[in-house]
Amino acid sequence: MKIAVDGMGGDYAPQTVVEGAVEAAISFPDIQEIVIVGKEAAIKRELNRHKIPGGRIAVHHASEVIDMGESPVRAIKKKKDSSLAVCIDLLRRKEVDAVISAGNTGAVVAAATLNLGLLPGIKRPGIAITFPTLHGISLAIDVGANINPAPEHLFQYAIMGEIYVRYLLKKKKPAVGLLNIGEEESKGTEVLQETYRLLRDSGINFIGNIEGRDFFGGKADCIVCDGFVGNVILKMIESVIEVFVRLVKNEIKKDYLAQVGAFLCRHAFQSIRRQTNYEEAGGAPLLGVSGPVIIGHGISSAKAIRNAIRVGANMVEFQINDRIVEEITNRNHRTTPNGSESQSKTAGTVSSNPTPPSLPTPPKDSEELNWLK
Amino acid sequence: MKIAVDGMGGDYAPQTVVEGAVEAAISFPDIQEIVIVGKEAAIKRELNRHKIPGGRIAVHHASEVIDMGESPVRAIKKKKDSSLAVCIDLLRRKEVDAVISAGNTGAVVAAATLNLGLLPGIKRPGIAITFPTLHGISLAIDVGANINPAPEHLFQYAIMGEIYVRYLLKKKKPAVGLLNIGEEESKGTEVLQETYRLLRDSGINFIGNIEGRDFFGGKADCIVCDGFVGNVILKMIESVIEVFVRLVKNEIKKDYLAQVGAFLCRHAFQSIRRQTNYEEAGGAPLLGVSGPVIIGHGISSAKAIRNAIRVGANMVEFQINDRIVEEITNRNHRTTPNGSESQSKTAGTVSSNPTPPSLPTPPKDSEELNWLK
Repeated sequence: MKIAVDGMGGDYAPQTVVEGAVEAAISFPDIQEIVIVGKEAAIKRELNRHKIPGGRIAVHHASEVIDMGESPVRAIKKKKDSSLAVCIDLLRRKEVDAVISAGNTGAVVAAATLNLGLLPGIKRPGIAITFPTLHGISLAIDVGANINPAPEHLFQYAIMGEIYVRYLLKKKKPAVGLLNIGEEESKGTEVLQETYRLLRDSGINFIGNIEGRDFFGGKADCIVCDGFVGNVILKMIESVIEVFVRLVKNEIKKDYLAQVGAFLCRHAFQSIRRQTNYEEAGGAPLLGVSGPVIIGHGISSAKAIRNAIRVGANMVEFQINDRIVEEITNRNHRTTPNGSESQSKTAGTVSSNPTPPSLPTPPKDSEELNWLK
Repeated sequence: MKIAVDGMGGDYAPQTVVEGAVEAAISFPDIQEIVIVGKEAAIKRELNRHKIPGGRIAVHHASEVIDMGESPVRAIKKKKDSSLAVCIDLLRRKEVDAVISAGNTGAVVAAATLNLGLLPGIKRPGIAITFPTLHGISLAIDVGANINPAPEHLFQYAIMGEIYVRYLLKKKKPAVGLLNIGEEESKGTEVLQETYRLLRDSGINFIGNIEGRDFFGGKADCIVCDGFVGNVILKMIESVIEVFVRLVKNEIKKDYLAQVGAFLCRHAFQSIRRQTNYEEAGGAPLLGVSGPVIIGHGISSAKAIRNAIRVGANMVEFQINDRIVEEITNRNHRTTPNGSESQSKTAGTVSSNPTPPSLPTPPKDSEELNWLK
């Protein structure tokens, strides 16, 4: 297994990226090679500070860098030799098995969609995140790739998220919930009402609409939401713990006994911060594109990069994309075009000839990609 | 000042409502009379348990009750003698100055919109909540009345929220932020992009888009958002503290010293829970309808009802609705229909003849109300 890492992506690149890649090479012996893509001189300078485990880190030169503020599609079309574009190209040519980038999120989505293409049958990619709840880790999809989803997009997010949770979070029959403003089927926008119907009739373990208050309760293992709400929440989650810690500190300052108490509790607090730290999750898989692509947080530390590489390796190991294609293909075979299910489902059989998963030719400037800006 | 309270609204009505009304009568001597509306016998039974301060609590009989699960518009049209409908009618006939209800939120919005009407110039009502941040109390609007807002609706929420913050949260030049998925003007849906332009050119202290991570930071005193996102967040806020407390308890159980520490910190934790408890805010004003209407949480305790009554009294005292009408009228006078500003603004003058605020005839089944379901 070979994994490419965008050496120039992230606020602290290339330093933390190189450090994270070295940590990953040490921690994950299953990864045959980690290819750091970017400005060779800068990356080699960083690499010289570390002891590299047995030739398992390579450098692939790319002369350009896409900045955080750049317009994604324009940047991808213009900077053909950017570290990100080269990473994606290595994946397209199957020279690597997965790509990790902590760079411009929009550019990662655009590069993967334009240059890898979407998995057969998938209409839109979605960014998934994993996060801690009162009952283990859950997944939310989408958190920012698609702020104007159609019901079919949300439905496919559920399919993809469910598979991810089943194989990577090891939950046998993941409970899928639709984020909405009330539990009844009639709640929310028309898009959500239609999505509810699609999920209800899907055979997925759909537990219905869930509300904001259920988000951290762990009621759903896979939460489906539109990318706008998901993105607002994602960023809110990141800040909530810090805000709470600040509130606690402010209160404790006022009271000497509480200061002593806080000192005695410090390990408990540290443990909570660890559990809720973005670094643990490492990176967010961009599901639906033809190849495992993991998006890291812009502020990614070395540890976050290391863990994002782990996520990429897991996606490869458990063949998540093949399973998604198989599931989508089976569903298309079972389902007539207007969405009602054909007899094969009623008879309890599934198609025995799923299209074998393969990386399709990327779509080029087709009208279908108008939603990418 | 007289305030009507929906005696049958809320999960623990009439008990907590009556208790809260009595507490309010004791705490707020400026309120001349609190009228509890609902089933007379049940309310009087509750009242008999309390010492009523000097005839300042009255009971107004209403024979019907709107349940939490009922379809709002249907319930309002059918149950003309429901406690909620009677409350709103007392307000329309100016027999009371404000209404508080912890009942079915959708029904409160529908009753107020259909039977009071909107303030002159206002296109949609919005529910506002106040919540604690690292820098004092902020307000968010809308949190559930309008899940499909047009730019003009969001713009008017900003106007109304800004006035509320100025007078009731006592901030001189409130910073208004638009909740979005990035700071740049080009981010988010077309509706948000257009709202950004309206706010930028409004003369309001608009600080631009804010992201989920800024929500609790106190960067914005007034956060404008669509009712869907606002509602998801509102419910998430309610649960976050409880989730955090559970996490802390789980961690502390594992460690004896931490248990001692937590005991020493308990006052600090209690203080944080108090600050972040929904009961403190009491109720959420429904802004934009022709009369002060405060929506309480379904689970409202007596303390929450008491504080919701305080919010209603404050809205009356500071004439929030008159100020909103004045502001909207002035803006309409200053602004040509296509949204560009006329010379009067450039010359630094404002209209000296704002339309005097008055309660308009409520619209009856007009097409404009199709958005109410």
